[in-house]
Amino acid sequence: MIEWNNLDTLSTFNTLAKDTTPVVLSEVMSGEAGAERVHNYSIPMAAGLQYNYAAKEVNDEILGTLAALAEEAQLIQKFQALYNGEVINTGEKRLVLHQLTRGQLGDDVVADGVNKRDFYVAQQEKIAKFANAVHSGEITNAAGEKFSTVVQIGIGGSDLGPRAMYLALENWAKANDTFHMEAKFISNVDPDDASAVLQGTDLAHAIFILVSKSGTTLETLTNESFVKDALKKAGLDPAKHMIAVTSETSPLAKSEDYLAAFFMDDYIGGRFSSTSAVGGAVLSLAFGPEVFARFLAGAAEEDKLSTNQEVLKNPALLDALIGVYERNVLGYPSTAVLPYSQALSRFPAHLQQLDMESNGKSVNRFGEDISYVTGPIIFGEPGTNGQHSFYQLLHQGTNIVPLQFIGFRKSQIGNDVVIQDSTSQQKLCANVAAQIVAFSCGKSDENKNKAFAGNRPSSIIIGEQLTPESLGALLAHFENKVMFQGFVWNINSFDQEGVQLGKVLAKKVLSHETDGALKVYADLLNI
Amino acid sequence: MIEWNNLDTLSTFNTLAKDTTPVVLSEVMSGEAGAERVHNYSIPMAAGLQYNYAAKEVNDEILGTLAALAEEAQLIQKFQALYNGEVINTGEKRLVLHQLTRGQLGDDVVADGVNKRDFYVAQQEKIAKFANAVHSGEITNAAGEKFSTVVQIGIGGSDLGPRAMYLALENWAKANDTFHMEAKFISNVDPDDASAVLQGTDLAHAIFILVSKSGTTLETLTNESFVKDALKKAGLDPAKHMIAVTSETSPLAKSEDYLAAFFMDDYIGGRFSSTSAVGGAVLSLAFGPEVFARFLAGAAEEDKLSTNQEVLKNPALLDALIGVYERNVLGYPSTAVLPYSQALSRFPAHLQQLDMESNGKSVNRFGEDISYVTGPIIFGEPGTNGQHSFYQLLHQGTNIVPLQFIGFRKSQIGNDVVIQDSTSQQKLCANVAAQIVAFSCGKSDENKNKAFAGNRPSSIIIGEQLTPESLGALLAHFENKVMFQGFVWNINSFDQEGVQLGKVLAKKVLSHETDGALKVYADLLNI
Repeated sequence: MIEWNNLDTLSTFNTLAKDTTPVVLSEVMSGEAGAERVHNYSIPMAAGLQYNYAAKEVNDEILGTLAALAEEAQLIQKFQALYNGEVINTGEKRLVLHQLTRGQLGDDVVADGVNKRDFYVAQQEKIAKFANAVHSGEITNAAGEKFSTVVQIGIGGSDLGPRAMYLALENWAKANDTFHMEAKFISNVDPDDASAVLQGTDLAHAIFILVSKSGTTLETLTNESFVKDALKKAGLDPAKHMIAVTSETSPLAKSEDYLAAFFMDDYIGGRFSSTSAVGGAVLSLAFGPEVFARFLAGAAEEDKLSTNQEVLKNPALLDALIGVYERNVLGYPSTAVLPYSQALSRFPAHLQQLDMESNGKSVNRFGEDISYVTGPIIFGEPGTNGQHSFYQLLHQGTNIVPLQFIGFRKSQIGNDVVIQDSTSQQKLCANVAAQIVAFSCGKSDENKNKAFAGNRPSSIIIGEQLTPESLGALLAHFENKVMFQGFVWNINSFDQEGVQLGKVLAKKVLSHETDGALKVYADLLNI
Repeated sequence: MIEWNNLDTLSTFNTLAKDTTPVVLSEVMSGEAGAERVHNYSIPMAAGLQYNYAAKEVNDEILGTLAALAEEAQLIQKFQALYNGEVINTGEKRLVLHQLTRGQLGDDVVADGVNKRDFYVAQQEKIAKFANAVHSGEITNAAGEKFSTVVQIGIGGSDLGPRAMYLALENWAKANDTFHMEAKFISNVDPDDASAVLQGTDLAHAIFILVSKSGTTLETLTNESFVKDALKKAGLDPAKHMIAVTSETSPLAKSEDYLAAFFMDDYIGGRFSSTSAVGGAVLSLAFGPEVFARFLAGAAEEDKLSTNQEVLKNPALLDALIGVYERNVLGYPSTAVLPYSQALSRFPAHLQQLDMESNGKSVNRFGEDISYVTGPIIFGEPGTNGQHSFYQLLHQGTNIVPLQFIGFRKSQIGNDVVIQDSTSQQKLCANVAAQIVAFSCGKSDENKNKAFAGNRPSSIIIGEQLTPESLGALLAHFENKVMFQGFVWNINSFDQEGVQLGKVLAKKVLSHETDGALKVYADLLNI
């Protein structure tokens, strides 16, 4: 029987908060014992990745308490309930099925009268068929010419995840001869976003994907209109240049305005939708359905690891628990995501949505106030760029920021130069290794301005290369981490009521039903 | 006589910390009094911008104490000392002269035997002449063809600021017929960064700008080598395709490897260098020297406002003081920068460097430990995109994050569509107005999951349009804000010793002089 309890009612949490001696990283990471620690504090992930947490402020005792916390909070049982089809998103009374888009971890899940795994696979097959037909020239523009660009129109989860995944694999696909067409993205309601993308696009050879689960997202419908206007002005028929990704019940589903429609459903939240048709259509068109399938396979393999009851063999679970320790015991308010990979330049922006929209909550899953902190602020930029920017604060600022590094032994393109006896890839990797040790061990100096206190925790995920499989594994790792943390905090990670009030007030402004401060702001902005 | 004292020794700070009654935003922003407040709590900035702080947790009493704090901390006198040429960057024993690149606020500043204002103006004139010659076809590639792309090679301040400024004005320049050539940027030591940019560039018609003050930045030299290899492979002479922006004493300054060299100096920190040759070369080539001059004029006009002793007429000073109140009295650890303008998509990343690298310090300007917090974490993405992402946490999370909105009444391109009776630009502006009120006033609801606590502070900078002038004013506002905050915290905002340890350790890894944990990480990363 699963019990949903607040974190501060768990006896293991109180043990963790009161009875643990803090770990001094600059000590435990030193000398041969430090080397041992880096060897030992490491867990294999899917697709050859490795989660190394040696530079986190934990020891065997704390890890033991975290494992007991996982058991007391029934984290694995809750995950089982989720993938076996229970209504985990209680606020919206919905199942949570994004894992089912890439594999089946448990029972058959039947909803709306269909087996949902079959439903998601059928959509993938429909997309694959469509993408292959576009690539082969079976589906073309009205002039019988092949499409050469795909433009995704969507916002939030329909933009950040797919865009980050596209950028992550663009150069890999070019280097591996699986690159079919460039993808672009239109998201913002700012009219300059759509205008600029359209100005730079060969419209006659562009295929547009309209992505909106409800079919009513105002930004997306507005940008669709921009695209249709531009196509018409260019003498093109919009219906021959657009496809839709939406739910079966949306107004877009059966419209004749689209070449094809592919379906998602209410059981996949926007921020968890990269492995659904939301990511599937654009990534299959850009890189081919086989690449998208490999991405799903990496995610599925990682999902399986996340079902493991043994905390020290379950990277997402351990990552989640250490994060809770950092947030609720050590009191750190934010986490930086620092991929040493230019291809992951927008991965932090995706994780920012994934984490902050899921776990930025102040009431538990029963709508009751909680008295402990939940999701941290997530931000980040690729290394080594960040080293020449905000790392100053990370090293010497007055707040400690836990760091999530990501690094790969090999580049994607493989082109490199030797300067001062090392390649750029070696320099990149040397920098991330150096940073972990600099942050944890610090350095004393008589001149305090040149001293480093150290004891700044980090973990690193290391892989051979950023490929479709390892990207899928990375994505699933963080999705599962966020899910486990939501379980620990006893919150509903799958709704987002915090976005509603702004929408309601914006409508009032647009219909001029305002008074007081809102009216003055509207006047100042000339609305 | 200027005295440099720690914040916690100032009597006004102790008044602020102990004797002020917190302002309840949901009360003061309500009804007609709220409307009054929005009218009154507003200061004109340069280039038609306006700084509105009505939704900040201040009242006349707190503002009075902040003004007294500004006086006790001698903030304006310290700024005067800075622009009159005192050694404000004490750690590195350097003047701080970035304001002098766009105007002269005080005395003539002579250093290295030259009048520095004359020196910066001379560099601007050299750049303008060069850019005009490139645009007119006087300076061409070896085949006598015009250059059509400019690629900046630089990292940190040589990348983030210029890139953000370029993106901010790209569509404006296209709409105003001042667009001369596309700019691209190579920054990361990740070899895939340079490879990907070069793959997508028409090398025969590209001109490269190598930007490194010292001429020794490893990332930049490495990427220069990438570029030279690619040019040679394409049968082109690198010396005919490259210019340098560097200091006069750098090895790049008189090299025959470059078409031309333009100079900056040690008195301009990387993160403050967008108005120097570092931003000047790429922006003048992309948009023409006249546009760069207009950008400088906006910054100069804003700088002048920043010299005003009256806090309520000095937007950068007031912004700085409110930020200190939020950080050191209210205890907020981070600030989000939220431009409602897709053109400002990378402006938050630039401010992240500017603020966090300047003020992420734990010792005062005399190298003594301080016992109060300094610079916050800065992050942000454009609205409305962020509304569909991390705003959930901002509205309903357990930590309060002060917000810096930016909005413009007009778009840059001017192309728009009417959907549901409003244009996209109106929707964009309605959203930012709505968010300010949603964050400050909140909304009660019996269902606590749908309730908004409100009392989440924000300010907004409103302008007519994002133009070269208003962009320059925006940039200078934040540069000056960061400077004033550094003065309040009694830290040196102009050095960055926190970046050194990582560099030293990375060198050790590359020369295989490691042991312990560092060696194991190096092994794991195959170096």
